[in-house]
Amino acid sequence: MGRWGDGVTQTRDTDTVTLFEFRDTKMKDIVDINIRVRYAETDQMGVAYYANYLVWFEVGRSEFCREKGFRYADLEALGYRLVVSDVHCRYRNSAKYDETIVVRTRLKHLNKRLITFGYQVLREDRVEMIAEGETQHICVDSHGKTKSLPEKFLHYLAR
Amino acid sequence: MGRWGDGVTQTRDTDTVTLFEFRDTKMKDIVDINIRVRYAETDQMGVAYYANYLVWFEVGRSEFCREKGFRYADLEALGYRLVVSDVHCRYRNSAKYDETIVVRTRLKHLNKRLITFGYQVLREDRVEMIAEGETQHICVDSHGKTKSLPEKFLHYLAR
Amino acid sequence: MGRWGDGVTQTRDTDTVTLFEFRDTKMKDIVDINIRVRYAETDQMGVAYYANYLVWFEVGRSEFCREKGFRYADLEALGYRLVVSDVHCRYRNSAKYDETIVVRTRLKHLNKRLITFGYQVLREDRVEMIAEGETQHICVDSHGKTKSLPEKFLHYLAR
Amino acid sequence: MGRWGDGVTQTRDTDTVTLFEFRDTKMKDIVDINIRVRYAETDQMGVAYYANYLVWFEVGRSEFCREKGFRYADLEALGYRLVVSDVHCRYRNSAKYDETIVVRTRLKHLNKRLITFGYQVLREDRVEMIAEGETQHICVDSHGKTKSLPEKFLHYLAR
Repeated sequence: MGRWGDGVTQTRDTDTVTLFEFRDTKMKDIVDINIRVRYAETDQMGVAYYANYLVWFEVGRSEFCREKGFRYADLEALGYRLVVSDVHCRYRNSAKYDETIVVRTRLKHLNKRLITFGYQVLREDRVEMIAEGETQHICVDSHGKTKSLPEKFLHYLAR
Repeated sequence: MGRWGDGVTQTRDTDTVTLFEFRDTKMKDIVDINIRVRYAETDQMGVAYYANYLVWFEVGRSEFCREKGFRYADLEALGYRLVVSDVHCRYRNSAKYDETIVVRTRLKHLNKRLITFGYQVLREDRVEMIAEGETQHICVDSHGKTKSLPEKFLHYLAR
Repeated sequence: MGRWGDGVTQTRDTDTVTLFEFRDTKMKDIVDINIRVRYAETDQMGVAYYANYLVWFEVGRSEFCREKGFRYADLEALGYRLVVSDVHCRYRNSAKYDETIVVRTRLKHLNKRLITFGYQVLREDRVEMIAEGETQHICVDSHGKTKSLPEKFLHYLAR
Repeated sequence: MGRWGDGVTQTRDTDTVTLFEFRDTKMKDIVDINIRVRYAETDQMGVAYYANYLVWFEVGRSEFCREKGFRYADLEALGYRLVVSDVHCRYRNSAKYDETIVVRTRLKHLNKRLITFGYQVLREDRVEMIAEGETQHICVDSHGKTKSLPEKFLHYLAR
């Protein structure tokens, strides 16, 4: 969990050097969104099925983008795709039908071609952790070829 | 259940008249596909969640098309979409995790712009019925405008 | 759509007669809940997949119950289940990723053993309709046997 | 990928010592199951949504158990649950609607309280890899308390 205290890890290659100008600006580190667990999301064990956490991560990062000033849909409209290359989730507890959970999202790593988001799924009290995880994304064009994320969106994400 | 014994109802307008040539050909009325119920598809009631029946209907009609000689993906590749305009499902029993169910699909109505599929979800013994339903589809182009289904595919479906 | 203007249809058998006392109380006819369309809910047609509307209906009726003073989970905790016996949905338009839709739920029919909910899925402006539908539910015990809904919950629903 | 060539890693504590008797028996290392990608599983990027890989993993391990001689449902009927404590998936390529993928499951680690399954998602040719991952499971009773997996099932899994 110590890693949540660190700043965004930005690779030191030329791709990301322009971002460092933003290091002094106050950065909203985390973005929280409340989600109420749906009946559809439970399984016969009586708790939310494990794959749904990845859906909640997606809701979390959509909200993160919105909070930073753009919609992920805008990026797609410009011909960019952020494809998931890696996901990891550690489940510590379970989420029940109708309870409100909090998905807390932050940026863990950012450069022009690779973005890593970190997530915590918390109880409504924002104290007890239910799960935590990361997703790694590669920026590609509509044909699936690697493409640098436009500078404008890098700025949005890093601020 | 009596309706399953009827032939395909084809509207008598000019759109569909060419189909009548096919009425004499032996028509494979139903197409069955086995599906094993996934843990993901259960809910905390311990049975398959009701929305999954619509997913199974989709698996059934994909198989129906394949059995008739084409893939629904081929139709999309040509710029056509079959958008769902209506769905109805009656649940008579429930499906359990890991059981094999049979989705039985047939064509209930066909013309150039409108297709209705009928479905039965059966136990593996193909006797006990779990659910039955219908979906109605409108043929549109990639911009969502109504478009006649190409004659070739009408022939495939009706045979 | 005229049916949305009618009052709750309550069967006139002895099961439901006690409800009529509540007819004079001001009844909150509809309950609205906003839902943001998830990326997970889209399909390759670029709009929300048709089965998700049934998930949204479920979110709508959970909210309806909450607004009426109880949680569906409370009912389950007492050993009751509301199993879906019938669902119907008419799709008039499509819902896009990241747009906020409104699920408007109302009670269409209520007696001790059978409940029918009606739904409208609207654009955020609450004017344009995307879809509408109904679900019918039978009250059973935890063994799946028909059981009368406790009077307390009938009162909650009807008020 | 080298790890797929290793035998099952069994912890050397007293919990698992009885398993070593089985090391000589011919062990079916991998279990393959074919899955056809559903339209419901695609998203607006035109490929299978990333959370569905976890559902496919579940289908893979259900099949693994069946191949080893038991059904996961049997284990639940005896009051045991295998709750997921960790999942990791690396996406190398994407899966398209209607294509048949192969989920290849193997046991990576086994003791009385912890099981790790490994997965590969392959194209139908079983050569090109689409994704690979692991899930870790803890054996608990129906109240969520850690409980040793019954010896009989350890034997099934290890053979």
